[in-house]
Order: sequence, then C-alpha cells, then structure tokens
Amino acid sequence: MSKLYVVGIGPGNYENMTIRAVQALKDCDLIVGYTVYVDLVKEYFPEKEFLTTAMTKEVERCSLALEEAHKGKNVAMICSGDSGVYGMSALIYELRGETSEPQVEVIPGLTAACSGAALLGAPLTHDFAVISLSDRLTKWETIVDRLRHAAQADLSIAIYNPCSKGRPDHLKKACDILLEYLPKDRICGICRNIGRREESAQILTLEELKQAEVDMFCTVFIGNAMCKSINGKMVTPRGYRHV
Amino acid sequence: MSKLYVVGIGPGNYENMTIRAVQALKDCDLIVGYTVYVDLVKEYFPEKEFLTTAMTKEVERCSLALEEAHKGKNVAMICSGDSGVYGMSALIYELRGETSEPQVEVIPGLTAACSGAALLGAPLTHDFAVISLSDRLTKWETIVDRLRHAAQADLSIAIYNPCSKGRPDHLKKACDILLEYLPKDRICGICRNIGRREESAQILTLEELKQAEVDMFCTVFIGNAMCKSINGKMVTPRGYRHV
Repeated sequence: MSKLYVVGIGPGNYENMTIRAVQALKDCDLIVGYTVYVDLVKEYFPEKEFLTTAMTKEVERCSLALEEAHKGKNVAMICSGDSGVYGMSALIYELRGETSEPQVEVIPGLTAACSGAALLGAPLTHDFAVISLSDRLTKWETIVDRLRHAAQADLSIAIYNPCSKGRPDHLKKACDILLEYLPKDRICGICRNIGRREESAQILTLEELKQAEVDMFCTVFIGNAMCKSINGKMVTPRGYRHV
Repeated sequence: MSKLYVVGIGPGNYENMTIRAVQALKDCDLIVGYTVYVDLVKEYFPEKEFLTTAMTKEVERCSLALEEAHKGKNVAMICSGDSGVYGMSALIYELRGETSEPQVEVIPGLTAACSGAALLGAPLTHDFAVISLSDRLTKWETIVDRLRHAAQADLSIAIYNPCSKGRPDHLKKACDILLEYLPKDRICGICRNIGRREESAQILTLEELKQAEVDMFCTVFIGNAMCKSINGKMVTPRGYRHV
C-alpha cells in the first residue's frame, strides 16, 4: 500500500528539519506543497518530483496528495513549521474519511512558537497559548475572545499570522485588546524569517508592539507577568531558583 | 570562546531530533542533563563525556553546564522535548545574567504538544493552550484559573505533567473543572511514551479521561468544540472545506 507522509519541515532550513522528516522526503516519490515551501526544500532534494498549489488552495492540495497516493505513489505533503499546528494533517484525515487507505503518517516539525522562542531567548518556559490572527477561517470575535482569556489567565502568547494582505492592522487591534489587561511595558518579541537568511529577532514593549511593522513572515510573542529582558534576550523564568 | 548549546532533543528517539540538535551533540565536548534524558542520547553518542543530575536539581544542573563552559569546554545541555517549553533555556539565561559569556545557543526541539498531536492525529490544528498540571513551581489556583480560561475560550489544550508522585489526582481535578464548561463527550486523547518503544495513543471522552490512569510519561489533549474522531484519529478541522 502506498503511503502519504504529512511532513512538518520546520521553519525552512535543512538544519531545523528532523531526521525523520528528511528520511520521508528522501523515501517518497513525490513532494506536494504550497509553492513557497516547495521552493524551500527543492534545493535539498532536487531529484524529486514536485507538485505545487497556490496559497489558499488547501483542499485542492490535499486532494491532489491523496489522489497521487491512491495511484500508488509514496507522497510527502509538506507543511511549514509543524504538520499539525495550523497545518494540513487534519484536512488530510478529513478528506480521507473513514478508511485507512492510503496509509497516513503525520511527521511533526518545529512550529514557529518553538523556533521563534529559541531565537528570542526563552519566552515560553511556562504555560502559553498559540493564537492566529487570521480571520479567513475564524471569526474575528472568536480571536478577540481568545486573546482576552489568554491575557486574563497570564498565559504567554505566541501570535501566528499577525498580518497579511487585506488585514494590515490586526496586530494593532490585538495589542489594543491586550492593553486592556496588560501593562504598556509588558515584554514582547517579534521574530522574522525564522531559519532563513534574513532571520531576525526584536524585543520591545507591548506599547511599542502596537506601532511595529509586521508582515506575514513574522511571529509575535507576548510575555507573561514574569517575563523579563536579560542581556537582550526575552526570558520567562519558571521559578526554579526559588524552590 | 566556548559555547553552551541548550538542546531540545524531542521525545527521545534519534529520528525525531533535528539535524541541528544532532550536530550540536556531535560537536560538543560534554553532554549535561537529567539522568533519564542522558540515557536516551547515550546510545547515539557513546564516545561523549556525560554529566548527570537528578530530577529536581535544575539550578545545580544549569550551573554545572555554565561552569564547564567557562572552563573552556563546549557543552550541550539537553532537555526532553523543546529546550524552551518547560525547558532549561530560561534558567541558563537567568544564571548567566548580564554577560555574553559563555556564548549560548538555544536549539529548539519537538515539544510533546506537537509530537503527541501527530501520534493522536491532528488535535492542534487550531488555536490552543499548553498548560502544566505540576504545582511544584506554580500555585494550583493559577493552574485552575488557566484551565478555566482555556475552556471558556474554546482553546484546544495540551496538558503536560498530568500526574506524578505526590499528586496522583491532578488530572481528575482538572477534568472536573473543565467539565463545568465542556460537555462530557468532548473528544480527548492521551499519549504515552512518545517516540519510545512503548509509544501509544488513546482517544476517549472527557468523562472517560477523568477516570483514566496516567503517569508522568503521558501528555493529555483536550479537543476544542470542532474536534472529532475520524477513523480512530483525533482531528480538529480548521474549516478549509467551508471557505
């Protein structure tokens, strides 16, 4: 029976892929994915066959991957970051439905919460929430409600999709909501292009974050009440020193 | 200048380590960690020098790693899962303080939220919270408050440390709190020994989870309102099919 791997490739560079992800990409006959991510892995596996679809064509992309696997190919469907966190694994299971063919193996990868945190320092040492500001598939009211609860619960927050075409002010709006609960000087961070050539990290206050320019290659971190800046790093102590 | 790598080794097997983590363990002179995790990597890097400390000796372990790096060794301090999420990277930065010596590089790894989710199916496709039930360093009231907010915000929840010696009923208590907000038949999951020989995954309802036996090698997942069981997998659709 042919196999469909749903592979989290991490932030995009080879070094941050797992051994298992690399192995799946070596073993498969065909790599399917969103154009930008396929371009990221193409240089490491140039001899493979590739199929790409545009950004919002998730159902088309997953159907294509399942179809090719049904035809007998071993297929690797790639996702940036983790294959689960805002990834394609759920849609693959949904579209496959109540059958076990093709065989599906979900291969986890480094999500931006973890790879971005490592770049900033250690902002997620304690309980945290991961919230996307994209309202393409989620009502803005739901997103706002989640931000409110996360702030009230003193969870650190990793914010995905802080901005994109058509919604340039989502992060500013999110900061306004968070500022109802959190102080202006709360430590925050922005990561850009994690694991790629232009990778960068910036630490700033929540007030400053409100004015910051972000794009779709950014991941944003909101510190919890314990979070501080130590020697240019964003650090959330867990309390080991006070046991 | 010598270097201190803080390395997330993922769930414990070689395949789920990143290329970068493997490289750091190859490059270093000394591997420092909690005994159980050191035993996990020893078989892959048998020629290395190792230093281990007991479970609750986090400050001692990190001080030791910094000390050895100061002496001129390249040190890899290993953490299970990610080096940030409930890991040692924050404590390393805290203990190093306002200096840049030794050079610290945080290498992210697969945290149990991602590796466990992949095992269960795709429970974390949408916004989620990561909450530890360990009250060794966090007041139980804070944990309860976070569970309440996560449930009210319809966040999926990855629960770390659902149980340990001295607090065998924390998961049961957590389920009672969640049941104030969520229905009894809410889909949940338990992962055991992720990435290890006895790895297993189980899907059950929140009501059943309350009675489930868990140990310190378990990670627990609470589905959000959209979560369902498809062909034995725990799946949270993100809504791509309804765009």
